[in-house]
Amino acid sequence: MTDTRRLRVALLGGGAVGSQVAHLLRAHSDELAGRAGAALDLVGIAVRDLDAPRDAPLPRELFTTDAEQLIVGADIVIELMGGIEPARTGILLALSSGADVVTANKALLATHGPEIFDAADQVGASVYYEAAVAGAIPIIRPLRDSLAGDRVQRIMGIVNGTTNYILDRMDREGSDFAAVLGDAQALGYAEADPTADVEGYDAAQKAAILASLAFHTAVPLDAVHREGITQIDAQTMDAARHAGYVIKLLAVCERVVGGAEGGGDAISVRVYPALVDRDHPLASVHGANNAVFVQAEAAGDLMFYGAGAGGVQTASAVLGDVVSAARRHLAGGVGVGESTRANLPVLPIGTLTTRYQITLEVADQPGVLATVAGILSDGNVSIATVEQTVITAADGAPGTARIVIGTHRALEQDLGETVDHLAASGVVARVVSVLRVEGD
Amino acid sequence: MTDTRRLRVALLGGGAVGSQVAHLLRAHSDELAGRAGAALDLVGIAVRDLDAPRDAPLPRELFTTDAEQLIVGADIVIELMGGIEPARTGILLALSSGADVVTANKALLATHGPEIFDAADQVGASVYYEAAVAGAIPIIRPLRDSLAGDRVQRIMGIVNGTTNYILDRMDREGSDFAAVLGDAQALGYAEADPTADVEGYDAAQKAAILASLAFHTAVPLDAVHREGITQIDAQTMDAARHAGYVIKLLAVCERVVGGAEGGGDAISVRVYPALVDRDHPLASVHGANNAVFVQAEAAGDLMFYGAGAGGVQTASAVLGDVVSAARRHLAGGVGVGESTRANLPVLPIGTLTTRYQITLEVADQPGVLATVAGILSDGNVSIATVEQTVITAADGAPGTARIVIGTHRALEQDLGETVDHLAASGVVARVVSVLRVEGD
Repeated sequence: MTDTRRLRVALLGGGAVGSQVAHLLRAHSDELAGRAGAALDLVGIAVRDLDAPRDAPLPRELFTTDAEQLIVGADIVIELMGGIEPARTGILLALSSGADVVTANKALLATHGPEIFDAADQVGASVYYEAAVAGAIPIIRPLRDSLAGDRVQRIMGIVNGTTNYILDRMDREGSDFAAVLGDAQALGYAEADPTADVEGYDAAQKAAILASLAFHTAVPLDAVHREGITQIDAQTMDAARHAGYVIKLLAVCERVVGGAEGGGDAISVRVYPALVDRDHPLASVHGANNAVFVQAEAAGDLMFYGAGAGGVQTASAVLGDVVSAARRHLAGGVGVGESTRANLPVLPIGTLTTRYQITLEVADQPGVLATVAGILSDGNVSIATVEQTVITAADGAPGTARIVIGTHRALEQDLGETVDHLAASGVVARVVSVLRVEGD
Repeated sequence: MTDTRRLRVALLGGGAVGSQVAHLLRAHSDELAGRAGAALDLVGIAVRDLDAPRDAPLPRELFTTDAEQLIVGADIVIELMGGIEPARTGILLALSSGADVVTANKALLATHGPEIFDAADQVGASVYYEAAVAGAIPIIRPLRDSLAGDRVQRIMGIVNGTTNYILDRMDREGSDFAAVLGDAQALGYAEADPTADVEGYDAAQKAAILASLAFHTAVPLDAVHREGITQIDAQTMDAARHAGYVIKLLAVCERVVGGAEGGGDAISVRVYPALVDRDHPLASVHGANNAVFVQAEAAGDLMFYGAGAGGVQTASAVLGDVVSAARRHLAGGVGVGESTRANLPVLPIGTLTTRYQITLEVADQPGVLATVAGILSDGNVSIATVEQTVITAADGAPGTARIVIGTHRALEQDLGETVDHLAASGVVARVVSVLRVEGD
């Protein structure tokens, strides 16, 4: 069946994932041809530097610095360069030349998604991007296709392997953030400049992509509330553990029923370290693994789990998309457009209501707890649980106490103002941490 | 965008899932139209008895007993009757009339899959069946599309909610099978005649479907080795727990590299209660939930988790397929055929090699362990661990002992013969259980 049909595949980018994709396209060519319904001919790999070392053995004549020439005339263009330019220009050229596009570029989709999906719609082509979120874990296709007849209520994702690795080790070893980060860098789990991971920028891009897809809404990256994990210390981890929680950096995409001004639905998209009950399926995601927990109206709770990024895992997702793109190209007709027809408003973080856990260091004096409780009550923050522990000073002088307060659901804006009042009250020596509780 | 395009949707079957699907098609019609790109008009529901009570409020004029007339002229036919006939005839008629088909019928696909997929190929239509395996959990689409560029090595699925519910309660409560089954029946988790579930027939159908898809091979149902859970008693559960395992009814679909006669790959497809390490992700699948654990060459370990069967969950999967079918119908071109081009041989269970745990009741006499060890050694079964516990008789008479033996990997055929020799040896009072260990 594959004797006559051939598709021309162009690859942009020869890094770790690109080399792996090129290698697998060639090594598994018979198997892929059988699945796609046509031979997939890798016609070239566009790179910046022809002499750079490659992660896989590939014939030198495949490489070119002329991306434009490679793109024009290709049936399928795989973009694995990363970054905004020249990836954006290359993808737009591919679409306008009649090619279907496969990309793993989360930064580009999170910032220029609408432009790219519009360009695809105009020519009836498709853009596949399973590899952009959670590596080889199928999550884009389930959201786009499997749940297309359902209504997604909430997504909670552990979508950054580096931060999960760090938090998991801190939780298990009781170590401090800086120590584990240094180790993670030495072991290759974190980059030399870890900002994109530990400050939540990477997770925020993925959250924007997931929320756009799940809620049929173009979610701009700057509408995603973002906090990183650098403030999480061993003491905070310890308090979480004592309260039956584990701390995970979560990407939360939530439908807020009736949350829009006219009474329609709105959405909330946010990335922050949150407390997750130890019995929740997300709590058992260890190491650098990823998992996406989805709650849908009819389907109920679903979880998708697996390895996050990694050259070979990401390559698996890219190749799955290449086969889908090939089948679509052969079948003809127009591709599935990226729907933004719901276009729900994205709420600011101040309107969030959730449960919180506040950890305070206070002077061990009579009346302190009453003062703290009064400030919370004045701020419309209702207390669910309180635990006070006295820390005796070594020299026998008046010690400090730690108060851990679990709240009922409160408004983020009220909570923020209340914490400011606590910090300024004179009885609170230090606000150790304020963490949101997710997953109940 | 949906003003002019309309698709005619016919539904066969008005049971729990059918009623739910019809209800959601009508209640969410605007949302579904936006996602599908056309209005989905439910033109009728074919049922046997017009007067039967329905689980959802539906207008009486939708119902008809004339399935044939309903099918001819429909763009999409949803088959939710279950069983072989008249479901098979209805689906074949739908395909030959140019409709795409959505079905949740695992029994039909496991026995007549090749006939149905061939019929679809001949007209370029598609058959969607996400709901046939693991309810709302997307597993068909990930296997067919997301992993299309990868090579699946093994699937281990908890695909029957009833048996997982029973085993989970036995594990947690130390109860006996019969007691928990009775309770499960009273609570609606098990049917009055539980044979299809507890004897593994339901899981075997799903295993045949998953293996066919994952290995591009038509796997006949009778090639699936099947054992149920009725032999699992509280004592066996207890022994498993002591050894750090939990017992799960698993559907295992495995690529056996070099297992075919000519040196090519073969596959093994089997359903049986197996010991799973308590640290394995499948061990934490509780209650009536389902989960499918997939190991692929490039993607690594993936797990898909969620609620199993259930009217509303299954309806979510059906509607996702309806939207996919609608998009394909609108896009035109031919559908994705069901590939059986690999056509790997399915190995008989006797050729399996795995680890086993054998529990024996023996007389508490000198030399018994030596005799047992000798029989195992003669049978090419190598011992990894042994634990002997003396059970003192109440009257002080010579008691019995229990020996739990963990083996290294052994050939199923050798193991079976060895267990027969043990049973006939005179020193073994009873072979309590022989269980395979999976997941390492």
